[in-house]
Amino acid sequence: MASETMKIGFKVWLENNGKAFGDGPYELLRRVKKEMSLRRASRQMGMSYSRAWCLIQTLEQRLGFALIERKVGGQSGGGSQVTPKGINLMNHYAQFRRDVKKGLEKIYRKHFSLWK
Amino acid sequence: MASETMKIGFKVWLENNGKAFGDGPYELLRRVKKEMSLRRASRQMGMSYSRAWCLIQTLEQRLGFALIERKVGGQSGGGSQVTPKGINLMNHYAQFRRDVKKGLEKIYRKHFSLWK
Repeated sequence: MASETMKIGFKVWLENNGKAFGDGPYELLRRVKKEMSLRRASRQMGMSYSRAWCLIQTLEQRLGFALIERKVGGQSGGGSQVTPKGINLMNHYAQFRRDVKKGLEKIYRKHFSLWK
Repeated sequence: MASETMKIGFKVWLENNGKAFGDGPYELLRRVKKEMSLRRASRQMGMSYSRAWCLIQTLEQRLGFALIERKVGGQSGGGSQVTPKGINLMNHYAQFRRDVKKGLEKIYRKHFSLWK
């Protein structure tokens, strides 16, 4: 085996009748939090606003709580912010994701590091 | 969170300039081994023979060794069998895959079982 350059590849997500949260949604929320705008966040990720909005709706339904709240009006003309529960999920997910990476690399090494 | 029905979803594979082995190839080889035929194995999985053959070529290149050898002629009119190294990889991969499932479920529980 070309084991010098071989590595593990993976994708991981939360599931509840379909994907409920994962790396893509995490990144989208991270940008919403920073930009205070779903429109800017989705544009940065090369998604249409309507697609991002629809994605958020789907995730919220599968998670059972709201991820984003819209602020209507005000000096800045409104915008979006991540809900406290959404931020809490982001924090949990980030730690979970780090543990997954570490855990999978360990399991990979156990089975394949010495394999020829 | 609808945490009663929430669970972890994942995909895992070996990577070396692209996917080198994973659940799909494992299943294909398992059927080749049983059927002694790449043609029957690919048909069972709803793949065309040419697509399966091309997939095997790509995997072999990324792995650096042969997965299948063709037996030409003979009473049964030829067929395919998995190489000893291919069988060894299958065994390693099956154990690795079981550990991955167990490990990921443990990490998921650690981060999300008590989360509301």
